[in-house]
Amino acid sequence: MPAMMEERIRRSFDAQGFMRFLGAQLQHAAEGSCVIALPARPELSQQHGFVHAGAIGAIADTAAGYAALSLWSEGSEVLTVEYKLNLVAPATGQKVVARAEVVRAGGSVCVCETRVFSVDGVEETLCAIALVTLLRREIR
Amino acid sequence: MPAMMEERIRRSFDAQGFMRFLGAQLQHAAEGSCVIALPARPELSQQHGFVHAGAIGAIADTAAGYAALSLWSEGSEVLTVEYKLNLVAPATGQKVVARAEVVRAGGSVCVCETRVFSVDGVEETLCAIALVTLLRREIR
Amino acid sequence: MPAMMEERIRRSFDAQGFMRFLGAQLQHAAEGSCVIALPARPELSQQHGFVHAGAIGAIADTAAGYAALSLWSEGSEVLTVEYKLNLVAPATGQKVVARAEVVRAGGSVCVCETRVFSVDGVEETLCAIALVTLLRREIR
Amino acid sequence: MPAMMEERIRRSFDAQGFMRFLGAQLQHAAEGSCVIALPARPELSQQHGFVHAGAIGAIADTAAGYAALSLWSEGSEVLTVEYKLNLVAPATGQKVVARAEVVRAGGSVCVCETRVFSVDGVEETLCAIALVTLLRREIR
Repeated sequence: MPAMMEERIRRSFDAQGFMRFLGAQLQHAAEGSCVIALPARPELSQQHGFVHAGAIGAIADTAAGYAALSLWSEGSEVLTVEYKLNLVAPATGQKVVARAEVVRAGGSVCVCETRVFSVDGVEETLCAIALVTLLRREIR
Repeated sequence: MPAMMEERIRRSFDAQGFMRFLGAQLQHAAEGSCVIALPARPELSQQHGFVHAGAIGAIADTAAGYAALSLWSEGSEVLTVEYKLNLVAPATGQKVVARAEVVRAGGSVCVCETRVFSVDGVEETLCAIALVTLLRREIR
Repeated sequence: MPAMMEERIRRSFDAQGFMRFLGAQLQHAAEGSCVIALPARPELSQQHGFVHAGAIGAIADTAAGYAALSLWSEGSEVLTVEYKLNLVAPATGQKVVARAEVVRAGGSVCVCETRVFSVDGVEETLCAIALVTLLRREIR
Repeated sequence: MPAMMEERIRRSFDAQGFMRFLGAQLQHAAEGSCVIALPARPELSQQHGFVHAGAIGAIADTAAGYAALSLWSEGSEVLTVEYKLNLVAPATGQKVVARAEVVRAGGSVCVCETRVFSVDGVEETLCAIALVTLLRREIR
């Protein structure tokens, strides 16, 4: 991935108030993939004290967006059309990490898969999986 | 809905750190439906300044969970198995409101639909629609 | 809906070998909606003798496609980007009927909801609900 | 996988009128995975002559069901709760092949991913990807 694209992804990530508010960290962005980490804390919890599905969905969708954007040119931006998230285990660890990969990118539509892991020390457990549909739009 | 259930939903909502952190408000809970509102603010924004899809997904899923819970008995709790969210318009208003309705509730599985509206003054625009699958679990 | 569009939808439906093979019937097509019926028979059954989820998905998706197409102009065609189908009750009746409605249509993306009913005599039971994302493409 | 389970999956597959009607073939069933092939023919086509999304969804869902069943015991059966299917390329080949893998199996819920490929000679192209949620039910 050209350095300009990586820089652009980082700038876009930093412009997302919600990612900062959650405390999410852009860990990695490469051609067709993106990794975002989110440390657990009480503010992100659901009623049982684990990371809320909504917070998991937020980083799953955002990681997918940057995985898609990495494949498109400078004049493009990315819109999430929809995402579907299966929650397969409670996020009981100290952080969650969303790893997005492009499944297929066409000229205007990109489908990504994001697997979200709960990280407890050195152990990772899959806690969610998402399929995300993204649309390319030219920046006017 | 018995008053005890309404009380229980309110208590559960208040116990969700993430809902409080977002500033979400439980507006209404009745038999088979639930409404949650979320005032827009910079902390909830995506890169264009509108409410982030992740925040929309969070209240859509949570409203669906309480709509389902309202139909089940005192000894039950609700797990989100999965949700699918279509984003159909940017959430440009002063707040978003998620209205969840039970589509069908069986003995152990409940399907809800949540429509999320962006509210600008007195005007409401549909900004997202979700289908949510929930599972009943007995509290041990 | 202009008569030309109705005629065009009917022609497109008749050109779908799979709809004919299933025995599906285009019952109604109007601006933003479409109804397709499918009589049950042993060839369409899953292992318990009810209409197979795959056949239900096929008419749910197809009905959504025509609901979307009805809103777009003569020079357009419609691609299904994705669909999500919740099966909420077994399709035990003599036929299933898929009723699709446009949730929101933009310039290039349309989201439809299809509710599929199992019809047993005069009684209708919701057996499935789908959210479908469609893309407009200009015919070259 | 015990031979009894493989035998049971094969018997269940053969009992599905719809799979026989489509011409689908159970190619492989192992612990946590299943492969179903479907030769293309005019009866399965959409309006452009390619395999209809509904037929693709049918084998994607069915393959996921057997991947899940393979992990559960003799006294169990499997219900599809919902599936979500992204269509990423037209199925232009001589057949489509659905390969399902269990993503995570719990005591009562199983999530599978199915990737469907269009096969043209020796070349395989991903044409669809599905996430499927399945529920275990004890046979009474």
